[in-house]
Amino acid sequence: MSQYLTAENSVEVVNARIGAETDPRLALVMSSLVRHLHAFIKDVRLTEAEWESAIGFLTETGQMCSDQRQEFILLSDTLGASMLVDAVNHPKPAGATETTVFGPFHVANAPERPMGAQISLDGKGEICLYQGRVLDLDGNPVENALIDVWSDNADGFYDVQQPGLQPQWNNRGIFRTGPDGRYAFRGIKPVSYPIPDDGPVGRMLAALGRHPWRPAHMHFLVTAPGFERVITHTFVAGDDYLTSDAVFGVKQSLITTFVPTQSQSEAWVADYDFVLTKAS
Amino acid sequence: MSQYLTAENSVEVVNARIGAETDPRLALVMSSLVRHLHAFIKDVRLTEAEWESAIGFLTETGQMCSDQRQEFILLSDTLGASMLVDAVNHPKPAGATETTVFGPFHVANAPERPMGAQISLDGKGEICLYQGRVLDLDGNPVENALIDVWSDNADGFYDVQQPGLQPQWNNRGIFRTGPDGRYAFRGIKPVSYPIPDDGPVGRMLAALGRHPWRPAHMHFLVTAPGFERVITHTFVAGDDYLTSDAVFGVKQSLITTFVPTQSQSEAWVADYDFVLTKAS
Repeated sequence: MSQYLTAENSVEVVNARIGAETDPRLALVMSSLVRHLHAFIKDVRLTEAEWESAIGFLTETGQMCSDQRQEFILLSDTLGASMLVDAVNHPKPAGATETTVFGPFHVANAPERPMGAQISLDGKGEICLYQGRVLDLDGNPVENALIDVWSDNADGFYDVQQPGLQPQWNNRGIFRTGPDGRYAFRGIKPVSYPIPDDGPVGRMLAALGRHPWRPAHMHFLVTAPGFERVITHTFVAGDDYLTSDAVFGVKQSLITTFVPTQSQSEAWVADYDFVLTKAS
Repeated sequence: MSQYLTAENSVEVVNARIGAETDPRLALVMSSLVRHLHAFIKDVRLTEAEWESAIGFLTETGQMCSDQRQEFILLSDTLGASMLVDAVNHPKPAGATETTVFGPFHVANAPERPMGAQISLDGKGEICLYQGRVLDLDGNPVENALIDVWSDNADGFYDVQQPGLQPQWNNRGIFRTGPDGRYAFRGIKPVSYPIPDDGPVGRMLAALGRHPWRPAHMHFLVTAPGFERVITHTFVAGDDYLTSDAVFGVKQSLITTFVPTQSQSEAWVADYDFVLTKAS
């Protein structure tokens, strides 16, 4: 093998440089990255103009990022990479609640609210009662589970997309289960919305003939002592975008029927049980 | 096939979204990118912490970019991607001058100087006479070839890395061949230097046990009517970093012997003929 890089030996030449003292996991990940990156370049015979355009795209993607915007997560999401990372890390046994993308809109330390409380504070949208149980794989209730929930508002925006808007913590809250494992809270029936598409990722989607919409969903982050945490959504059955989610987040088991009610306090009810697996 | 993304069908699900009206070349490039990206994630079973670290790394790489710094080009260079793009685009027939990375330090519209002129304007470094011919593949001289040259200074910096420094256009110039195809100019014998390593790419190199140094070289961009342009360097034979160039730019045919002289006007002479191929 020539010691100088050629189209034939490029992977071996680059990876031969990795030092003997390198963390073995980093060496494995980076050498695989180089192998796949080089295979991609050779498979498509990437032109210099395309390479230049890729450099510009990645640069712009980085420069679009701010405290309110994470364009590289959008890129990962829209290329299916985020859901694939989720899939390889969280193979779930039959019966356990499946996971989906975390998304960029979670905010840590939302207020803990009493069971049944309303998280929609702006008075807009159709009210839904969300209820169910947190269970283990044997069907036993899980006590002291924390259910951290968040959704968009009736206009399709998360509160963090409208900084400064009052009231604070609109459409967010944390609920703690008792011995029966039950939870209940009220929020809006969420609405479908486009991911932010005024940046390079939006331009990429447009060039590929793809729309930026996500089907309506409520976010859940469920944690409990001794169990694996579950990051997931429940999706509104019947949504137009269920089969074309811009970030590929939908799973059949997460689609939830929102049932109309005659109740004064809410127009809809959505039942969903979360089934947790033991922490390894 | 499920319409929802799984670890097994992820490539097909993502690529099935590409619209029928999409530019065919873009569709081909993006579907190959998705295939290789997903294969990488599955091969290494990328963890969520590693994914998060990759998002942070790419974001920082984009945010490091400025008018004076292109960190994504450094990333491409240090992963061997830039040289591989060069290799797949410029397979050269035997006898033609080989190409190498453009690098981030070229500046368009350098002054055209008379043949034999000195491009090193700061009085530092050891002077070298660069000379040779521009030829076609049959050995005929090429008239009206423009030879755009640039190098670092005796301290290892390009002028654009030291904005505001006088004199302007230090170690840069353009020379035009006459009917004999000959060129000659004086510059410094270049010195080896580290690529900028105070950013994420530098941290990556350090984590991989790699140094950031490039072997000493003079840059050439040779253009002539009717011929393919050639972007290349000549490397100083004997340099310590020839076999470990941080950006994998070295080719055997580009290593040039710098011969010491007894001349008053220069300490070294470096002969190199450029052999161009016809534009297609």
